[in-house]
Amino acid sequence: MSLIAVGTMAFDAIETPFGKTDQIVGGSATYVAYAASNFVKPILQVSIVGYDFPQAEMDELKKRGVQLEGVEIVKDKKSFFWSGKYHLDMNTRDTLVTDLNVLLDFNPKLPESYQDAEFLMLGNLDPTIQKNVILQMRKRPKLIVMDTMNFWMEIAMPQLMETLKLVDVLMVNDSEARQLSGEFSLVKAAKKIMQMGPRYLIIKKGEHGALLFHEDKVFFAPALPLEVVFDPTGAGDTFAGGFIGHIAKTGDISFENMKRGIIVGSAMASYCVEKFGPERLKEINKADIDLRIQEFVNLVNFDIELV
Amino acid sequence: MSLIAVGTMAFDAIETPFGKTDQIVGGSATYVAYAASNFVKPILQVSIVGYDFPQAEMDELKKRGVQLEGVEIVKDKKSFFWSGKYHLDMNTRDTLVTDLNVLLDFNPKLPESYQDAEFLMLGNLDPTIQKNVILQMRKRPKLIVMDTMNFWMEIAMPQLMETLKLVDVLMVNDSEARQLSGEFSLVKAAKKIMQMGPRYLIIKKGEHGALLFHEDKVFFAPALPLEVVFDPTGAGDTFAGGFIGHIAKTGDISFENMKRGIIVGSAMASYCVEKFGPERLKEINKADIDLRIQEFVNLVNFDIELV
Repeated sequence: MSLIAVGTMAFDAIETPFGKTDQIVGGSATYVAYAASNFVKPILQVSIVGYDFPQAEMDELKKRGVQLEGVEIVKDKKSFFWSGKYHLDMNTRDTLVTDLNVLLDFNPKLPESYQDAEFLMLGNLDPTIQKNVILQMRKRPKLIVMDTMNFWMEIAMPQLMETLKLVDVLMVNDSEARQLSGEFSLVKAAKKIMQMGPRYLIIKKGEHGALLFHEDKVFFAPALPLEVVFDPTGAGDTFAGGFIGHIAKTGDISFENMKRGIIVGSAMASYCVEKFGPERLKEINKADIDLRIQEFVNLVNFDIELV
Repeated sequence: MSLIAVGTMAFDAIETPFGKTDQIVGGSATYVAYAASNFVKPILQVSIVGYDFPQAEMDELKKRGVQLEGVEIVKDKKSFFWSGKYHLDMNTRDTLVTDLNVLLDFNPKLPESYQDAEFLMLGNLDPTIQKNVILQMRKRPKLIVMDTMNFWMEIAMPQLMETLKLVDVLMVNDSEARQLSGEFSLVKAAKKIMQMGPRYLIIKKGEHGALLFHEDKVFFAPALPLEVVFDPTGAGDTFAGGFIGHIAKTGDISFENMKRGIIVGSAMASYCVEKFGPERLKEINKADIDLRIQEFVNLVNFDIELV
């Protein structure tokens, strides 16, 4: 099965209570690709970079089965750059710099070779761009998953609502779910959001885990209690990559299999936060991933008899 | 198996975004008794009340197998009174009034008939009082569970540390675990706290569930995602009552059975928050409890094969 991953490939400068980086590779599609490529090949990447994006990173991704035909390289502009500083609790951060650079020109055209992809992961982007990608696909993918953020709710809500009508699974964090629905209770928020288009809703709660809603069903996956969260950047995108990677690998879009996808995504995210940027994701192999998944099984497993 | 429950029996006045009460029955030992009496009898209550505590409440508790020989009635003083107002998120609250009243005289003496109890639940109280109860027991109970709060860490830390040495299981919330240990990571906090005495640590995270630590093992139980949390007062005590009630019923103090106890406690707490005070706890029966436990099973159940 093949998977299209749409999103940014960029540079980040990150400051956490544990350290600081000047300029490292980041971007939603980068994290999605590193996570998903453990499960499915090819990943059909759709993004835009400037002249400064490292060839070594492109080569590393290619080696992992990521096709870059859909990655536009702009010769006279810089790549998207984001800089942020995390607070001590690691759940909140301040954005220091946002240089859109090439992102201002991002108007992706799907290569012909991407047309038969069965799975589409739309990383956090302008909802109009997300919609344009969906509309370019001649055959609707088996599953369309979309990430978004509060920023688009503030400046492009009508466009966001249009795109929501076209997707199967929406991923947001808890405060975004509240903002999008106007409901404080996540149960009520989920009901409202599932009337906007997505039949499935994943609410990410960071260190408090994730919820999956569908019809009247709900599934909860914890986050692994970690001694150190070194850098949370990209954890949400890595979660998305693990989720859609597992779904694309199995080709199974049932609720039961999405539960597994969420555990896989959580396991991948728990590795991501151990080092700066996607560094840790490049080190791990299948045995590491299985080990982490087993930790999740142990973490929530209980056996109760109702007598 | 018999269970001693030590704590307050009191009046509360509560204001939430959903409503307001003038003066309703509350207190940690009240909630523990209502929750635990679904699983084990007798509950051997240890508390203190004033002349104003309603006889009807005493009768109701007796009917449920709660023995009141250890509840001192002070004829010329009022019962402990607490008043608080919850913020919109229901996770934070302001204390408006604390009238200690009879609590100033609380120096519990264990009735002779309580001496053979196998389980001891110490609700949130002055740690010196908690210690005095433990020291009065001629035979050490099979399991001693202790609740406490940030207030005692601020004004009686040395006494709290003394009491901690004598208990098996400590229950605190996440911010209290951080305060007690000086560690932000709950994993690190748990390691430090388990060196203070308790071999088991339960960290309550409210709407984000609960963690159980023991040696190098950890178990996570979610909270049920609810449409409405009407009144969180007593949820922690109800959780404690369900937990120790299940343990006392089964007589099994293994880690595996504590996991089940946490699910039972979480189910009881999820009922508690549906109405003001212990009102909802008085309405539910075994079928309701089983139904809620089954919801927890469904919420976290997944089946993953590592291939």
